Amino acid sequence: MTAPHDDPIVVVRPLLPAWQTLGPALGEVIESQVLTNDGPRVRRLEALLSAGIGRADVAVTGSGTVAIQLACAALGLRGEVIVPAAAFPAVAQAVLRAGATPVAVDIEDTYLTADPDAVAAAVTSRTCAILPVHTFGCPADVTALQAVAASAGVPLVCDAAPGWGVYYQGRPLLSYGDVATLSLHATKLTHAIEGGAVVGNTREVAAAVRRLRNFGTGPGGALSAGTNGRMSELHAAVGAAVLAEAPAEITRRRAVRALYRQALAGIDWLRLCAFRPGAGPNVAALAVRLAPDAPVDAERLCDALQPRGIHARAYFGGRYRIARLAAAGPAPRADEAARRIVCLPFWGGLRESQIARIADTLRMIARTPALAG
Amino acid sequence: MTAPHDDPIVVVRPLLPAWQTLGPALGEVIESQVLTNDGPRVRRLEALLSAGIGRADVAVTGSGTVAIQLACAALGLRGEVIVPAAAFPAVAQAVLRAGATPVAVDIEDTYLTADPDAVAAAVTSRTCAILPVHTFGCPADVTALQAVAASAGVPLVCDAAPGWGVYYQGRPLLSYGDVATLSLHATKLTHAIEGGAVVGNTREVAAAVRRLRNFGTGPGGALSAGTNGRMSELHAAVGAAVLAEAPAEITRRRAVRALYRQALAGIDWLRLCAFRPGAGPNVAALAVRLAPDAPVDAERLCDALQPRGIHARAYFGGRYRIARLAAAGPAPRADEAARRIVCLPFWGGLRESQIARIADTLRMIARTPALAG
Repeated sequence: MTAPHDDPIVVVRPLLPAWQTLGPALGEVIESQVLTNDGPRVRRLEALLSAGIGRADVAVTGSGTVAIQLACAALGLRGEVIVPAAAFPAVAQAVLRAGATPVAVDIEDTYLTADPDAVAAAVTSRTCAILPVHTFGCPADVTALQAVAASAGVPLVCDAAPGWGVYYQGRPLLSYGDVATLSLHATKLTHAIEGGAVVGNTREVAAAVRRLRNFGTGPGGALSAGTNGRMSELHAAVGAAVLAEAPAEITRRRAVRALYRQALAGIDWLRLCAFRPGAGPNVAALAVRLAPDAPVDAERLCDALQPRGIHARAYFGGRYRIARLAAAGPAPRADEAARRIVCLPFWGGLRESQIARIADTLRMIARTPALAG
Repeated sequence: MTAPHDDPIVVVRPLLPAWQTLGPALGEVIESQVLTNDGPRVRRLEALLSAGIGRADVAVTGSGTVAIQLACAALGLRGEVIVPAAAFPAVAQAVLRAGATPVAVDIEDTYLTADPDAVAAAVTSRTCAILPVHTFGCPADVTALQAVAASAGVPLVCDAAPGWGVYYQGRPLLSYGDVATLSLHATKLTHAIEGGAVVGNTREVAAAVRRLRNFGTGPGGALSAGTNGRMSELHAAVGAAVLAEAPAEITRRRAVRALYRQALAGIDWLRLCAFRPGAGPNVAALAVRLAPDAPVDAERLCDALQPRGIHARAYFGGRYRIARLAAAGPAPRADEAARRIVCLPFWGGLRESQIARIADTLRMIARTPALAG
């Protein structure tokens, strides 16, 4: 047993304006007495996101999970939704909550995103949508996937949870897919503490999402797919303030990634995950891939780092994997990702000395047979 | 057409401490950088609620809707859940999101809560729970309903959404039912802007709800019923501050109800809804029942009040009623409630002059054939 470290390096520190900036913004919300239920700050955040993505049809939600759920509900999905086998559990859970059935397919080995060939092979008469994930901000192969979706006659719904600020082939990543979803959770580069958004790219879904997030109430009665999917005005005010600081955070994160690249260069049993050519900046996460002959697997590495004051996450296996998820077939590359992919601490304020400590600790773990065991 | 009134009386103003109190509490959250994900303020709010209800097993959630959803999931409900036909749509929607099937039964005419005889008649081999609602804070007939539930061998899950502060037969209303749920939405006497809670009375559910609200992640993998059901630390800090002011608000609301009773006494086509004997205080809402020969029905009354600067709600019909909800049979008393029950503006700060204006406007509407239609 090692005692908890007295100076832990967490996985991510949320981007936050100083209280001098944020305090007055929150004070205004409280003084206004308009605290939630589609208020002016939610509408302003929608306008800001809309301007950043270059799409008019944007509705914010209480979380990125509810964004996926209400995107599915707005599209009236009933049947099978093809999802990647390696994804945060929220994706499949949200599809289930929307009343559809997630069916998992394997991922591309290099970019960890839904494999278009596996998706095409999984299409059946019951398929009602294809839902790839831009894993750690790396674009799924949207060109190939859009072709598969068109051929199947179903919408492409892209979960771009950590995709704010990423461009692909000259366009915001969130502008890809018939519909895209965003997370604004505190762990994301841009956040509203808790929050999300749905973007209608080729389909108009924002009006439907606005109705559904407010219990689906409206003319003709309440829709059974409705829920409380709202963002509060307090969270929306934080969201707008954080959004303004995103460009500076992106610059800082690019520098942190460069420091990591240097610091990890001498460790031959792991490397930074690849990012799809034509996409950038790569600032959502610091994902590394362990070599097949690495001294530890992903979960053991996280377990060994934790008591040494370094928080890391293996998001594709263990506690994060939904045990009984319907699968179109075996997913050996997703299984491999569960064993080999780790997210190391990553945020703009990470110092060079902390990155050096992370690299030193990784080397130490590899040298310690009882840890690597 | 009447122009929007320049001094509208809204349905409810949220209870809020002054910014001098609330500002520092929110500033502490921001400075701590712990913004969400089961932080210390969520745990503190759980302890405060627990102390108020006198039950150890309490888990807060992101909304009252998700509280019902995760209560159902924590109990593993699969099958039919008996719900009242007159209820806010969130109730049936949450049951559906949990993967069970709501089946509506009629209500008691006097107290607007699930009729125990109708519930007993609706029990089938598929019934997995009975879910009454303490409508506007008025207790359902929990003694009779608990007997029906025991006889059917299923849990009684009481939605006490607006039930904070209400006692029944000497005990907090939230302590009734095998499990109870609470809303902490801004429209409730006690709120966290958005929020809710699940209370385990005879079953321990809080640990399961805590896991489910965080995507169901944990040993053995993620549970498919998991979701993002969290309350943020910012909302939890508001919740604790508001809770401290609830006793004073209850005192104010009792006085406002007494003023309403006087002001409405001369209007013979409506009366205050009854409250179950042995329960009190009656401070969640100001519900009135229109007489069968009233000059307007509930929806027309709301429509006539709105342009005159008075916001009222007919929660059981129109835009709030789920069109295709499975029903155990006809529900004539719920249909009648949809036509006859209206919630008038109600909060502790409502002034006598505003109540007089509401009464005057009600009289004027009755005298105006074009409005009364």
